[in-house]
Amino acid sequence: MRDDLNQLMQPVYDFLGCQTPQAWLNAAQENLELLMQDHANCEKKAAGTAMNLMFRYSFFTDLQVKLAQLVREEMLHYEQVLEFMAKRGQQWKAVSAGRYASELRKEIRTYEPEALVDVLIIGAFVEARSCERFAALSPIVDEELGKYYRYLLKSESRHFEDYLALAKDVATTAKMKNPEEEIENRIEHIQEVEKNLILMPDSVFRFHSGTPV
Amino acid sequence: MRDDLNQLMQPVYDFLGCQTPQAWLNAAQENLELLMQDHANCEKKAAGTAMNLMFRYSFFTDLQVKLAQLVREEMLHYEQVLEFMAKRGQQWKAVSAGRYASELRKEIRTYEPEALVDVLIIGAFVEARSCERFAALSPIVDEELGKYYRYLLKSESRHFEDYLALAKDVATTAKMKNPEEEIENRIEHIQEVEKNLILMPDSVFRFHSGTPV
Repeated sequence: MRDDLNQLMQPVYDFLGCQTPQAWLNAAQENLELLMQDHANCEKKAAGTAMNLMFRYSFFTDLQVKLAQLVREEMLHYEQVLEFMAKRGQQWKAVSAGRYASELRKEIRTYEPEALVDVLIIGAFVEARSCERFAALSPIVDEELGKYYRYLLKSESRHFEDYLALAKDVATTAKMKNPEEEIENRIEHIQEVEKNLILMPDSVFRFHSGTPV
Repeated sequence: MRDDLNQLMQPVYDFLGCQTPQAWLNAAQENLELLMQDHANCEKKAAGTAMNLMFRYSFFTDLQVKLAQLVREEMLHYEQVLEFMAKRGQQWKAVSAGRYASELRKEIRTYEPEALVDVLIIGAFVEARSCERFAALSPIVDEELGKYYRYLLKSESRHFEDYLALAKDVATTAKMKNPEEEIENRIEHIQEVEKNLILMPDSVFRFHSGTPV
């Protein structure tokens, strides 16, 4: 089991610029209800983002099918997290979004197909980071939740690979000059931005927040 | 089988103000590819509408769970219709929206909770109409597609009931004066608008279009 998990996680660790700092994990243990509510919101937003892409890029059939499957999975996770909250007597609370997604979105170039490539690479980073956090959280939360997080990280690691494959597909299909180099460069750039969002001090605790101050 | 179908369909026929005119069914047989493409778009839009509601009314947990399940089902149907199209060698084509949804949306009142009640009742009509059309189409298309339409109409009839139940829930929870009377009045009004959209001449053929001119 542990070996299986390591094998699953290695590509995720290789992709991300850093692992989650211990201070964030400590804060997570102390703010489990907030984490759970924000996690629910994240699943819904992930589905919403994928669906927006489906409306914006209707003509791209491969992307349609992969994203439709992704929407279904994120929706199912959303229902599951709501069920966890209900079971634990946790009321739904309005929780504002952290800085993570909005800061990443600032990196999206304003012209196509570069914009779509960027959105898909950012999607890959968000899924990879979620996967990494679930792996780090699973041994330090209660057994029931830990088991659920280990189940979730398998989907997230698949979604990370899906987004990356779609980014490469788009770069090739749209006949970018050097698609592989283009993708590599953007991964490197967004990796740096994402790493800083995770390591830099963050006054707000959320599922994707930085190092707690 | 036929009796089961009648039992399933009766509440749908009772809810709708009219059945699909024969002229539309004739046009459908002659425009099966267009029908299929527009049907795919409708499944995606139904999922998109449900997801928009989920973002707008986050605090309403019952609605969240029911709509999340609905999104998953509509997405699965979308994938299935794309699969049908691929299997039959039908390329994806851009197809503009008909008048149906935009005309129904004009009936949404601009203040809450009336706006939400209206959106949910309109959702019930769209699902009921889809259900009625699939039932009417299933014996006049090829066997494979007919079987699929009979499978689909079961979901649509459930979605129709779900939307209606949610409308009643919202009217009660939001403490409207006479929730039952309020819902009855709106159903009557929107039934009339929807019936006219189905019976009045329509120069554009779509899944939810009116009588072909």
